[in-house]
Order: sequence, then structure tokens, then C-alpha cells
Amino acid sequence: MPTVELTGEMLIGAAAVPGDSGTFTARDPRTGEELKPVYGLGGPPEVARAAALAWTAFDEYRHTDGERRAAFLDRIAANLEDVSEQLVARVVAETGIAQPRVRGELARTVNQLRLFGRVLREDSWIGARIEPPLPGRTPLPRPDLRQRKIPLGPVAVFGASNFPLAFSVAGGDTVSALAAGCPVIVKAHSSHPGTSELVGRSVQAAVAESGLPEGVFSLLFGGGSTLGTALVSDPRVRAVGFTGSRAGGLALVATAAARPVPIPVYAEMSSVNPVFLLPGALAAAPEELGRAFVASLTTGTGQLCTSPGLVFALDSPYLERFLASAAEAVRATGAAPMLSRGICSSYDEGVRRRASRPDVTEVAAGGRDDSIDAEGVTHLFTTTGSAFLADTSLHEEVFGASSLVVRIMDDEELPRVVEALEGQLTATVHATDDDLGLARELLPTLELKAGRLIFNGWPTGVDVGHAMVHGGPYPSTSDGRSTSVGTLAIERFLRPVAYQDLPAGLRPAGLDDANELGIVRQLDGEFGRA
Amino acid sequence: MPTVELTGEMLIGAAAVPGDSGTFTARDPRTGEELKPVYGLGGPPEVARAAALAWTAFDEYRHTDGERRAAFLDRIAANLEDVSEQLVARVVAETGIAQPRVRGELARTVNQLRLFGRVLREDSWIGARIEPPLPGRTPLPRPDLRQRKIPLGPVAVFGASNFPLAFSVAGGDTVSALAAGCPVIVKAHSSHPGTSELVGRSVQAAVAESGLPEGVFSLLFGGGSTLGTALVSDPRVRAVGFTGSRAGGLALVATAAARPVPIPVYAEMSSVNPVFLLPGALAAAPEELGRAFVASLTTGTGQLCTSPGLVFALDSPYLERFLASAAEAVRATGAAPMLSRGICSSYDEGVRRRASRPDVTEVAAGGRDDSIDAEGVTHLFTTTGSAFLADTSLHEEVFGASSLVVRIMDDEELPRVVEALEGQLTATVHATDDDLGLARELLPTLELKAGRLIFNGWPTGVDVGHAMVHGGPYPSTSDGRSTSVGTLAIERFLRPVAYQDLPAGLRPAGLDDANELGIVRQLDGEFGRA
Repeated sequence: MPTVELTGEMLIGAAAVPGDSGTFTARDPRTGEELKPVYGLGGPPEVARAAALAWTAFDEYRHTDGERRAAFLDRIAANLEDVSEQLVARVVAETGIAQPRVRGELARTVNQLRLFGRVLREDSWIGARIEPPLPGRTPLPRPDLRQRKIPLGPVAVFGASNFPLAFSVAGGDTVSALAAGCPVIVKAHSSHPGTSELVGRSVQAAVAESGLPEGVFSLLFGGGSTLGTALVSDPRVRAVGFTGSRAGGLALVATAAARPVPIPVYAEMSSVNPVFLLPGALAAAPEELGRAFVASLTTGTGQLCTSPGLVFALDSPYLERFLASAAEAVRATGAAPMLSRGICSSYDEGVRRRASRPDVTEVAAGGRDDSIDAEGVTHLFTTTGSAFLADTSLHEEVFGASSLVVRIMDDEELPRVVEALEGQLTATVHATDDDLGLARELLPTLELKAGRLIFNGWPTGVDVGHAMVHGGPYPSTSDGRSTSVGTLAIERFLRPVAYQDLPAGLRPAGLDDANELGIVRQLDGEFGRA
Repeated sequence: MPTVELTGEMLIGAAAVPGDSGTFTARDPRTGEELKPVYGLGGPPEVARAAALAWTAFDEYRHTDGERRAAFLDRIAANLEDVSEQLVARVVAETGIAQPRVRGELARTVNQLRLFGRVLREDSWIGARIEPPLPGRTPLPRPDLRQRKIPLGPVAVFGASNFPLAFSVAGGDTVSALAAGCPVIVKAHSSHPGTSELVGRSVQAAVAESGLPEGVFSLLFGGGSTLGTALVSDPRVRAVGFTGSRAGGLALVATAAARPVPIPVYAEMSSVNPVFLLPGALAAAPEELGRAFVASLTTGTGQLCTSPGLVFALDSPYLERFLASAAEAVRATGAAPMLSRGICSSYDEGVRRRASRPDVTEVAAGGRDDSIDAEGVTHLFTTTGSAFLADTSLHEEVFGASSLVVRIMDDEELPRVVEALEGQLTATVHATDDDLGLARELLPTLELKAGRLIFNGWPTGVDVGHAMVHGGPYPSTSDGRSTSVGTLAIERFLRPVAYQDLPAGLRPAGLDDANELGIVRQLDGEFGRA
């Protein structure tokens, strides 16, 4: 396998461009060591250059057919596989994520690219709807009406800290935007620039190898308030995908709304992913649940969007057994590197704040290892339902392997804590057959609070397929009508257009009478391939 | 047919509630006569009452099945037909719209209700996607994943002045929200309160006759900045539908974005609906095009969202013939009542501003009739492409029967004016076979500018079906990813939810293994009824 030399440059279209607005370097969160090369920061001029190229590329790119775009995504996947060893090593060095997880994330990333390729080859995403003319209809004839979805335009993608592959340069936002026919400009996350450059060079190469216009993809490095704001403000950028903090997401939402022409922002921001242990399930296997809970909590050192940060259960001896088992598992958990010094200090601060409260009790803490630079230590707390209801700061995410178990007083307190929850990516229910009545009562409220409901499992682990929803009501995302994982994510970057009495010679692919693409369409409201 | 006595009250759930925050009366725009009864204005307390009822009703209403909800919509349609004579007379009196058009709008309104009923009976709108479990998948088993769309919650609908039936109390926003499973709170437009009450009482009766919870529907009267703001700010309201001015729509967007939990606003705001007369088409039938253009322009006294307010054509003798024919048709057009004194004075002001410009020439004006209180007179202007490019105030909508014909200098100026256009609901191209090359060049730009492209027709007349898009890029609407007319409009009020390993006994309708509803679903990404 080849080794790609990292240069610390941005990738703007086909060019490699050094940034001249300051520099930064990645740091190994395990050791604190600085990692070469030095990266140059870009600013508004680089945004303008990338946006101009993206806009120019948009017209040609959006008219490529599904097969061509699918082949492009496959090429990106193959290019990533070609540098997989170097890539995995760099991700481990820049993020401290254990190698097996990185390999898993790389597999998820290439599978995701190929899954969207299959969506493009199948072509039904264009949402064709046809109503043939009815010249004899009274009182007015019906014209020929044909509808399809077209891409919005260039998309700005902000890489995530916690998924350096699956939600960064060639991750879910990028692949769904590219699949929709939108050029992409990525602002790399500052904690893994080498990973970003390596992936970016794979995408850049795939653009050239696929004979696509260079502006289909650019990769920029820069500050959020400077380069990031310029990117979201650029009139040629037509949508934004973001995964990160609530403050960061809301800043982008405000910038996008203040444009002369506002654009949609799909920001996935924060979630505490409540878990409900119903009485039957808790009584059936309290120790097993405790262990499984901690396994989920400590996955990725708790730095997953779907980490279970809140657990609710009726106070009972079974809950004590659950807590004892969970505490034991927490204590058996070694310290692990967090993604960066910044995330680590935010986590430590959040844990300190929680531990210092009189209405919160620390149940257990994981092992320490001071040799780790960005040391992530697991923490488990409990509080009461009434304390939870009294202070919404207990509802907030502490990003990292910390969770709060809420002792619910009685059946009347349970619906009140559910009602008090903010919007979430997920909500989880553990229930046996005996609990189904209660689960049935909770379900309608939970589905208004979350994008995904999990039964007898754990929220970590997001399957990338057709039926996944990784989204949810505000503030878990800025737009609860969407998902950022799974094939439905393509819809975020499309809008419908209707063509009335369009001459046959001008009809776009998929809107022809013969349905040469053989796609699923709606004909007079009926789905079929006619 | 029965005659309903109008009382001037708001309808909050099952109650009739007099407003005590001031009064107003409708006025016949033909005569200036005040129309009984006097209407009482509501304020925040009435919003709170309606929102509380709507929220309570939501849980039951959203769980009604498609058949039950369809029967409810059918009932509204039947109730409207029962009062059709009284309703048509009241609409004519309150809006000055000619009776045949009102009858047509009523037919469109009841057809629209029944169309959404058919959508509900067909049930595919729930967007079911199923991925059965793959316990043997490596490296990780796949859970059972099932996705569907659920309603957002209570929707606030702001009635439109220009469609007192089809886009007001029981119009497109209301019916698509009700179809989605969302209770609706309508803020009536102040220019047709009697129409609103009459329609509102028909809906209120249908709620009761259908055995639905009363909070499914409420009708309020009040000021935009008081009651309207309170409505959009209420935490129980989860989405907004609006048709009206840009200022009004943007105020609602700002209010919704400033909430602790922001909500989507679907505001249809303004559009000038550019028409392009390509050389072949113009040469083939200049006089006929001129007459047809004026017929479209004067439909509804120009007060349609899709009125052709801009016409572009290469300067040529054929354009002179088009203008002469159009001028003749304009002069032959009599004055007609506009919808209200307020709209009339805004129109007169817009026409005056346009007529006073040195770079604009008035080609013709229609007949006058000073006996009409809110007198609408047709006006036709011309300008040059360079003037149009130099001053964006010429791009603005003048709501009423006024249009501006832009003389394009040459083939190079044409793409520049297209590029300069704001987002539009529609764009229209007149083209013969000789023009197809040019049409093909224009199409990609036009489809980025508009929600509907019309060939060899006129933008007025919006067919209510499955393939219609009545929406478009900002500022024609606040959210160009949607349509407010046609069955796709239901999507505005839905969001996806995924269920992971949901016990079979808890599966919602449509997500069962047997597909007892027989709906079209995606199974492992393949559409079908399996």
C-alpha cells in the first residue's frame, strides 16, 4: 500500500493550498505529543475560492447520472481502502481511539459510501411523480405535471471530533450531499487534520479519476468564527451539515438565518439519550443490565452522540442491585484517552460540577491513568426524580463517559420526568412482557421526544441503513425533520420541482413516459415502475 | 340549505368565544359597505386556551387511523357543500371576487379535502421503511429497524387574503396538517371574517360529528403582532403555515426562530413569476401571446401568488406586436374590485412608484370605475434589460394586475437577467421546437430559481394533485424544500422516527410484518407492498 505524504495544505478543487492565517498542529491525546506536519489555517479568501469552484462544478455534477455518481462514491471508498493502514494509524494517533474501533469506523465509512452508491443506482430517491394530461377534464383540463427532486447546491460540511472518519471529511454528511448531486466543501475538525488531509486526498483523487469537475470537493482548515462563518455566509453555499456542540451548531444556525438568502442547517448538537429501566426488566436481570449499561456508556470513552447519559428507574432493591453491578463495572474500567485536551477539560469540568452538588451522589469512578495526556475517567452518579425535575442543569449533556441514574419515586413521577426531557437523538426502554402496558403508555411521549426508540438494547451503535433515524427534536438537532445517518439523509439536500407541459425532448431522466431508468415513481398517486 | 347565523365569535374547540381585545368588521371592497356582524378580537388568553385544547387533542388525534381521518376531511367537505350558497355569497361580499371564481375556489377546496382523504386511505404517506434483523451479520448483528413518519404537533395556520377558501380556514395548509395528524389553530385573515366563521363552524361541526376531541380545530381572530405572535410563540404549537406578504412571513420566521425550541415556518411570501417569450414562440403568435398574457395577468385582478409580474423577450418587431396586442387587451379590461382597501392602496402606491420612474414606460392602463371602493386597474409597463439589471427594486412584486415587460438586448443579456432573479414560485417559458436549444440552456438555471416550470402556458392556475409544487426558493417561500399545494404538502408536518427492536405488540400500524394496511413500504430499501 502506498504512503501518502501529508503536507499540511488545504485541498481546494485540484490544488493543494497552504494556509497563511496562522498554523496549528494535531496532538496525540494519549501522550500530548505534537504530530507533524504543521497545518496552515485558511480564511475568507480560501472559502471564496472553494465556493467559486463548487458553484462552477454544481451545474455539471448535478447532471451526472446515478451510475456515474455511484461509481464516484465507490472510487472514494476504494481509495480509502488503499490507504487504510496509514489512515488507521493516523486516526489512532490523532484521536486516541483504539485501533479496533477505528477499523470498524473505517469499514462503516466505506460501507456508507457504497450504500449511497446503491441508492443512486436504484434512483428512486429522485421522487418522481407524474400526472399525465387530462385534456377533457372539467371545468379545466389538467396539464401534464411531472415532479422530481433536485439538489440544493454546494454544501458546507463541518467535520465531527468524535467520528474522524464516519462523520468527517468523507462521512455521512459528505456522502449524502454528494449523492444528492451537491458539491461539498468540508471544514476539517481541528483535532484530526492529518486524518482529514489523508481522507481529503482520497476524495480529491476520486474526483479526478472519475473525470468530475474539480470543484466537487474541497477541504479547508480554519477557525469556526472566521473561516466557518465565511463558509456558511457564502452565497454559493446552499446548505450546511454539522456535528458538534450545541453552541457551535446554534452559531451556524444564526449565521445561516442572517444571510440575505437563508439556508438550511442540519446540525446534530447534543443528546443525553435517556434509558428507562421498567420494573419487570429491572427485576429480571439487574446485574446484567448494570454491566451492559456500563459497556455502552464507556464505548468510545463516552464520546458518542448516543452515549446513555441518563438512566431512569423506579427506586427499588433491584435498582440497588443494578447500581452495585454498574458501580463494579465502572470501577473495573480503566482510564482511556479522550479525543482532545479541550474535550477532556470540558468533561472534567462537567464531572466536577455534577460531583459537587448536594443533590447528586457519586456512585463510582473508573480507574485513573495519569500517563494519559487527555485522561478520560468514567463517572457514575445518582440523583432523585424530584431533584431532576427541579433543576434542568441535570438534563444537560456532559460529553464523555459520565452518566446520571435518576431514582424515580413512583408511577406518577415517571411521566413527569419524561415530559421534562428535551429533544433527544434516542430514547431506550428496557421492558419484559410484564412491562408492555407501561411501555405502551410511555411510547407516545417518547416518540415525540426522540428520533430513535430502542427496546432492550443500548443507544450506542447506529446502524447505517435504510430505516435508521439519527436525528431528533431540538435541541438534539437543529431540524428534527431529518436524519444524518442512513439513506433518508439524502433528502436533506434535495427540493422538489414541478414541470408543467415540459416538451418531451427536455424531460429529465426519470420523468420520461417510458421510465427508462426503471425507477419507482408515483403515477397519478400510485407507486410503481410503470 | 340551512343558513348559519354568524355571531362574530371565535371558535375554540367546541366553544364559541367572544373576543374582548377590540372589534373589527368586514368591508365589501366593491361598495365600501361594512358587513355585519361585528367581530371581537382575541389575544394571548385565547391562544393559550386553543393551544391547550390542541395539545390535549393531539395525542388522540394522531393515533386515529387513515380511514377515520379521511372520513373527517370528507365530512368537512360535505359540511362546506351544505352551506355553499351562503358561503359563496359571503365570500363575494367580503372579497369582491366574482361569483364564478368563488364557486371554482369552493370546488377546489372540497376536492382538496377529498384528495387528502384518498392519500390517507392509501396510507403510504407514513413512509414505512423496514429492515428485518440480521442476527448473523458480522462484525455486528443488525437489529430490527422500522421507520415511519409521525406528525409534529399542533399547527398554526394563517389565512390568506387572496384565497378565502382554498388557502384559509379549511384550505391547503389546514388540510395537509389535519391529514398529517396535527390539530390546527387558524388565525383568520381580517378581511374575510364572516367567510372564516362560516367555514370554521363547518370544521367545528365536523370535529364533533366525527367524534374527535374538540381541540383538533380552533379559529381565532386577532392582530398579527399580538395574537399572531402569541400563537407562533406558544410552546404547544409545533409548526406554522402562512400565505401572505414577505414582511408578514419574515416576522413569523423570526418569532419562530427566537423560541426556546424553534419550529418550522412554511411561509409562502412573494413571487413575480417571470415569463420568458423565446424568439420562435414570440414570432409564431405575438398577438395571441399578448392576449393570453393579459388574461393570465388579470385573473383574480392580479391578486394571485402566481400572477405573471415579469415578462422577458428579446427586443424585436414581434415584441412590439406582442405589446400592442397586450396593450389593447389591457385597455379593454374593466376595473374590478381588489380584495381590500389596504391591498388596493398598496397596489396603487406600487404602480405610482413604477410609473414615475424615468427608466420605465407605461404601455397601457385598463378601464377605471370610480364607483368601486377598492378599485383595481390593470397596468402594463416596459423597461430595458439594463435597467432591470441595474435596480433590484424592479424585481419586486407589485401585488395586483400590474406587469413589467423587460426588453432584452441580446442573447448575452438573457442569462444575466435570469441569474439576477430572486427565488420564485414559478417560471414560464414559451418555446417552439426552434427554441428548444435555448430552452435547454435556460432550464438548469430556471429550476434553481423556481418551484414550478411551465411551458407554453401561464403560471396562474395551480392544479391540486400529486405532482404539483407550489413552493420555491427564498424569498418566494421561507422553506424551498416544500410545497403548500398538492399531496406532497403533508410532508411539511411530519418527521421520521425509527424503532429498534420494538416488541411486535407495540408496533404502530404500517410497521407490522404482515403489512395489514397493504401500504407501499421500503423493505431493505426495495419499494413494495410485501
